[in-house]
Amino acid sequence: MSHTVEILSVGTELLLGNIANTDAQMLSQGLSGLGLNVYWHTVVGDNPQRAREAVAIAKQRADVIITTGGLGPTCDDLTKNVLAEAFGKKLVFDEDSAQRIRDWFARNKRTMTDNNLQQAMLPEGCTVLVNDWGTAPGCAFQAEGVHVIMLPGPPSECRPMFLHRAVPYLQTLSEGVIASHTLKLFGIGESSMEAQLRDKMNAMTNPTLAPYAKEGECELRVTAKAASDEEAQALLRPTVEQVKQLFGPLVYGVDVPSLEAVVLEGLKSRGLTLGTAESCTGGLMAKRLTDISGASAVFKGGIVSYTNEVKAQLLQVPAPLLRQFGAVSAQVAAAMAEGARQALGCDVALSSTGVAGPDRDENGNEVGTAFVAIAVPGETYVRPLRLGTRPMRERIRTQVASHAFDLVRRYLSGLPYQD
Amino acid sequence: MSHTVEILSVGTELLLGNIANTDAQMLSQGLSGLGLNVYWHTVVGDNPQRAREAVAIAKQRADVIITTGGLGPTCDDLTKNVLAEAFGKKLVFDEDSAQRIRDWFARNKRTMTDNNLQQAMLPEGCTVLVNDWGTAPGCAFQAEGVHVIMLPGPPSECRPMFLHRAVPYLQTLSEGVIASHTLKLFGIGESSMEAQLRDKMNAMTNPTLAPYAKEGECELRVTAKAASDEEAQALLRPTVEQVKQLFGPLVYGVDVPSLEAVVLEGLKSRGLTLGTAESCTGGLMAKRLTDISGASAVFKGGIVSYTNEVKAQLLQVPAPLLRQFGAVSAQVAAAMAEGARQALGCDVALSSTGVAGPDRDENGNEVGTAFVAIAVPGETYVRPLRLGTRPMRERIRTQVASHAFDLVRRYLSGLPYQD
Repeated sequence: MSHTVEILSVGTELLLGNIANTDAQMLSQGLSGLGLNVYWHTVVGDNPQRAREAVAIAKQRADVIITTGGLGPTCDDLTKNVLAEAFGKKLVFDEDSAQRIRDWFARNKRTMTDNNLQQAMLPEGCTVLVNDWGTAPGCAFQAEGVHVIMLPGPPSECRPMFLHRAVPYLQTLSEGVIASHTLKLFGIGESSMEAQLRDKMNAMTNPTLAPYAKEGECELRVTAKAASDEEAQALLRPTVEQVKQLFGPLVYGVDVPSLEAVVLEGLKSRGLTLGTAESCTGGLMAKRLTDISGASAVFKGGIVSYTNEVKAQLLQVPAPLLRQFGAVSAQVAAAMAEGARQALGCDVALSSTGVAGPDRDENGNEVGTAFVAIAVPGETYVRPLRLGTRPMRERIRTQVASHAFDLVRRYLSGLPYQD
Repeated sequence: MSHTVEILSVGTELLLGNIANTDAQMLSQGLSGLGLNVYWHTVVGDNPQRAREAVAIAKQRADVIITTGGLGPTCDDLTKNVLAEAFGKKLVFDEDSAQRIRDWFARNKRTMTDNNLQQAMLPEGCTVLVNDWGTAPGCAFQAEGVHVIMLPGPPSECRPMFLHRAVPYLQTLSEGVIASHTLKLFGIGESSMEAQLRDKMNAMTNPTLAPYAKEGECELRVTAKAASDEEAQALLRPTVEQVKQLFGPLVYGVDVPSLEAVVLEGLKSRGLTLGTAESCTGGLMAKRLTDISGASAVFKGGIVSYTNEVKAQLLQVPAPLLRQFGAVSAQVAAAMAEGARQALGCDVALSSTGVAGPDRDENGNEVGTAFVAIAVPGETYVRPLRLGTRPMRERIRTQVASHAFDLVRRYLSGLPYQD
């Protein structure tokens, strides 16, 4: 039997548009991966009556209800109260949860107020979903043929609570095994990838192929359902190989977290160190590298040279070069990367320079014009970029940083810098 | 009479989590600004039966239904068909819309297929919302006491269609004016802020006070409704002043975009320049500063010194200091900030050093231990931080960067660095 899921988000901040419902997106991705059908998203505010009505509707049409938000003291634990009431359950005090809340406040040296302890009141007989990422525990129960799972609203809690608490619970609902692999591609647009795959995608039923576009990168998820993991893997293998062959060097990894993770891993395995010199990305490359724990084994450091003065002094970019070609030029990108190798004493250095917008630079370079360079022993390569004037500042910066990482990946794999 | 709005989004891509429902966020912001109460967001897939049921529910509880998506040929114009049917309206051919669609394809040199012209079939008697940003026209009608507005799904069409087509239609529905101000606070937790405000909040009806927590910061939105903007502002003023007095230096701004924006603005108005030396934040401070266009007027650059070697060479942190106190120490934080002022030639420099996790550092410093320092002419100040071991790497880094920015804000405002 196939389960149908409703995601019910509680929070006035969603209805006021203060935040987008990224929890629902994250959950939808994860639930689809588990083979569960998400048919409805509903959002209501911190209002008991409307929350009650929404739960009554969800109860009729879905057999799994996953709630986000409304578990904290500021909303009087609205979600828990309403769901418990809808399924005729009492709230009972859970001493384990209470102790965890007390510990959390002690550890974080915050003052606990009475309403914080209200979070330890949970529906009788529920499975407590321990929250190691915040104070409000989640919970799960089954009643009247419906599975109810309640998760906290803040994305930094909702995501790990889903992955580490809800998924194990939900996996028992899914019959058979769902297995999937995700191929990550850089350097191709979503529509171009889809056009090349469309016939294949439409003809497939098990495994299935699903494309996703994400911040200038593409992902292809191959998913198979079978009685056992071995069978599912056997179904997946030929498709993964076919897609890898089809897209060749554009595929930078399978089941890898990110381009920067692949780059760090590749450098680490060769014992090479990395440094960065950033102008238009303004620290984003360094930030993305150091988002990954353990980066310090490879990444020595970076220089954000937002002015020509800093480019000249810390990266030794020759002043005549800056005058003649301007800061946004292939020549300066190359000099920055070489200067960073020297200044930071690293094996491989990356640089970026470009116009992130919203306006052209003083030399008339259009928004989206950029150069990324890689300097390795005995060689420097510059990739010119034209990212179009349409993307916004943030997207341009992300793209430029990704192109720089792509150069390292290609260097490590012995691929040409440009296809 | 106060109108209640339901936003009904149609699109399987939302239920699969391929995209977040940013249309609903954008519409919610706009509608709240118009004084309309958004009480529900609903998402269904490209499925006629579930769309029909969702419309039946919306019709009962809301008196304004705004739909997004489901207007294009790939979904057989599902939304239009379902809404027309629900309100007993026929679809009729609109020659003006058809001509606009033909023109669009000619202009964009694309091949028009028969189903593209289906988009010119619109509910009889509706107001056509001309789409100058894509092919699918929107429409609006009133029936059975409900206002229905249909907008296309792609955000690049939905946003301008809302602003330029739906808003003029909706303005006629709104009585009175809603005005709000947002106070931003740094250095206080949400529950502590909420505890101090609870009695006040509960006693208020107009204006109202709503707290939000966001990445280690807090916001307080004060909202008033009145016949005119002047009246609403007069209602808001005393409450904003009271809250500012209550929280004193913890309030860093009213209606400002972010702490880093306040910092850049403050430095710019004094003609001061800024530089950064980052260890545990690894480029995040520089990234957050350069997220803001125009940062180059103030921000000269930064050094990401992820190794002791780079700290010593580029920031002139004395080797004995590193040996004696370790990289994560008040002494090294101070030396890094002073070194950055020198190396980058800036008036104000910030530094960060700490343990972002997941593991302790080699000197046994716990995750969440960090120091931020500010160096200004004639003075260096270090703030030690204990961010708790539970928060994740990302949150610790965000917090550390925000604390560093807080030091600049306090310096510029003549506030003590620590309350």
